[in-house]
Amino acid sequence: MLSIDEAQRLVLCHAQALEATQVPLAESLGMVLAEDVFSDLDSPPFDKALMDGYALRRADLPGGHGELDIWPETILAGQPPGSTECPIPAETAARIMTGAPMPAGTDAVVMRERTSEIQSETAVVGRVLVNDPHLKAGQNIMPRGTEMTRGQQVLKSGTPIGPAAAGVLSAVGRVAVSVFPRPRVAIISTGNEIVEANENPGPGQIRNSNGPMLTALVARAGGSPRYLGIARDSNDELGLLASKGLQSDVLLLSGGVSAGDLDLVPGVLREVGVREVFHKVNLKPGKPVWFGVADRQRSQNSDLKSQISQPTLVFGLPGNPVSVMVCFELFVRPAIRRLMGFADAGPKTVWATLDEERSSKSDRPTYWPAWLEPNDNGLCVRLVAWKGSPDLRATTEANAFAIFPPGDHQYRPGDRVQVLCTEY
Amino acid sequence: MLSIDEAQRLVLCHAQALEATQVPLAESLGMVLAEDVFSDLDSPPFDKALMDGYALRRADLPGGHGELDIWPETILAGQPPGSTECPIPAETAARIMTGAPMPAGTDAVVMRERTSEIQSETAVVGRVLVNDPHLKAGQNIMPRGTEMTRGQQVLKSGTPIGPAAAGVLSAVGRVAVSVFPRPRVAIISTGNEIVEANENPGPGQIRNSNGPMLTALVARAGGSPRYLGIARDSNDELGLLASKGLQSDVLLLSGGVSAGDLDLVPGVLREVGVREVFHKVNLKPGKPVWFGVADRQRSQNSDLKSQISQPTLVFGLPGNPVSVMVCFELFVRPAIRRLMGFADAGPKTVWATLDEERSSKSDRPTYWPAWLEPNDNGLCVRLVAWKGSPDLRATTEANAFAIFPPGDHQYRPGDRVQVLCTEY
Repeated sequence: MLSIDEAQRLVLCHAQALEATQVPLAESLGMVLAEDVFSDLDSPPFDKALMDGYALRRADLPGGHGELDIWPETILAGQPPGSTECPIPAETAARIMTGAPMPAGTDAVVMRERTSEIQSETAVVGRVLVNDPHLKAGQNIMPRGTEMTRGQQVLKSGTPIGPAAAGVLSAVGRVAVSVFPRPRVAIISTGNEIVEANENPGPGQIRNSNGPMLTALVARAGGSPRYLGIARDSNDELGLLASKGLQSDVLLLSGGVSAGDLDLVPGVLREVGVREVFHKVNLKPGKPVWFGVADRQRSQNSDLKSQISQPTLVFGLPGNPVSVMVCFELFVRPAIRRLMGFADAGPKTVWATLDEERSSKSDRPTYWPAWLEPNDNGLCVRLVAWKGSPDLRATTEANAFAIFPPGDHQYRPGDRVQVLCTEY
Repeated sequence: MLSIDEAQRLVLCHAQALEATQVPLAESLGMVLAEDVFSDLDSPPFDKALMDGYALRRADLPGGHGELDIWPETILAGQPPGSTECPIPAETAARIMTGAPMPAGTDAVVMRERTSEIQSETAVVGRVLVNDPHLKAGQNIMPRGTEMTRGQQVLKSGTPIGPAAAGVLSAVGRVAVSVFPRPRVAIISTGNEIVEANENPGPGQIRNSNGPMLTALVARAGGSPRYLGIARDSNDELGLLASKGLQSDVLLLSGGVSAGDLDLVPGVLREVGVREVFHKVNLKPGKPVWFGVADRQRSQNSDLKSQISQPTLVFGLPGNPVSVMVCFELFVRPAIRRLMGFADAGPKTVWATLDEERSSKSDRPTYWPAWLEPNDNGLCVRLVAWKGSPDLRATTEANAFAIFPPGDHQYRPGDRVQVLCTEY
């Protein structure tokens, strides 16, 4: 049986970043930049005062101590540089505000707290006493172009757009940016026994938890979910819904992939043109997971280009919700991230300290719902009480999965285990 | 000067969860549940087979080995329990599929791989040979109500709604849930020198990075951002925009809170009825941060009730973008999370291993942009090259802030430092 690593490699070798598209800056948060971005200006655009105080010449004050005339005009932020009668003469200090351009001739700012104005009833020009023993040329000044210079590359293609990048894009005049779009991810629940949340399950029926859960998983991963409904265990109904799903970038089905008599999904997917890449991975829970690719179905809205460029990635996920969740994190989320242009497709794993005694015995790598949190020594993981892959309720108390390798293992408190993160 | 902890306490004692509201399940992702949720059913609704194989009586097979008649009907998932001619007689095994209800009389499932059908041309009834030496009563069965029982509390008020909770809510029939709403957060940039991203800055002007950055920070924190534009440094213009902002749950202004001649924000906010709670926190960068509260302004859309129940929280943030970011993470984000009903308001800090030599000297706790990532030993932090609070570009390479306590410190590679997380 395929290992998790091999299966992940097979998924990712069919997943390339979608064709880039231009979006308004405000919509780009969480997406990945698809262009290198260059600055069209120097920032700051002038030598800039970083403190409220006095702009002066270092050379006028040996030892940082002495008296200077006060320039009649205060230099404010937002004032054009050079708008004063420059340069400021020697032995003179100009009051200056944070963010204001340094007047020509000055080379240091002394903060207001290290100065005192000299009261005089007779003097025509005000005088200031400066006392800053560590006074250095350049102090409290950010030279022009320190943050970025005109023509400099400020963001690389492949950078995820977070708040800081949004601020920089705006600073260099970008109101729209080229990004890799959010993949459209179609979701189908399968099974005769499944009814929707607004229905009362009859005998032997259960409500659909995989549909809403997958919708949320896709949204959290950055994709754009489209829930298509429940397909009964019939070739026709399943084939019809699956064909509709093949218009999306990714199609997810839950249920119907085991070896049971009603596990129709692999057969139906083949019939609608999906080529199987793998079926079954050495993993617990989630072993029956199925993956294939299909040529994009023509949808009424799509243009010819996008149909040719990328196949639809099709995941037949197991029916039990915790198996769905594990397979999603291990295989689907990396695919979505790769389509979105993330260099780091994941999944994201960390090492953490187990806080309890535990024995684990399985022929397969086992994922156990767990709570991961930082403590003073790093990361700590606590297993939740869990009854197996149909037990989704227990998993609401988890934010990660502890990974136990195959074999017979005895863990003690303080032992380190690998953990699959789900919240990122 | 106020410490960061004291300032955070003052912010949080003015921030309570907003009045709960009902939203469709699909919109609740990332919000916090405002009601206890109980199950209206047993799950599974019957004793459920966890494997494809044969349902049988443990007592019929001493040693787990022997031959049984095959029941003529296969039990499928989605089939009502008790729909077979129950109970299955002794010395008989029924073919059963994963997820199907156990037929009455049986108490174990043997997986298909441990059975073989006996070929016979003469027999009327099929026979199966079972060989499962570890056969135990109850094996491969999930008893009715294992995941949850009717009437059981399955989710507590205060639980953040993630994918697993969405699945459970759907399973218990909830198509809408009561949650604490996303706070409306108004954003104003201030300063004569600021122009919008679509403009070409004249001499001495810079483009607005704080507006788009705060919009993104608010969205990432879970709030609903409303950008109101740039206010010039005039009491009238600032007062008008600020009054508009007071219709929201939170009002953020950037710039104009230092001691400079044009730092009008604290005065104008007092004029429009905001009561100052604090001004200045012992922190670098971000010292001039201002916080106050105001009675809610009447907006055309709001009802009387919400105006009475909660004041508007008003943050006067510094003008330099990295100061804005640090103050947002330390004070604004916890407020937003508390309004959203998160028990854990944050901020989120972890301890990590510094990977370089570093000296830090400051009279204030200092936040330095840094890259936090897991390694095999826990968490590791790398400082980015950063030129100070106006240098937002450098911060695009960071996902956290390393925290250096006040004083004169010399760090070596491997030393542990506290880190403020920004991506959660």
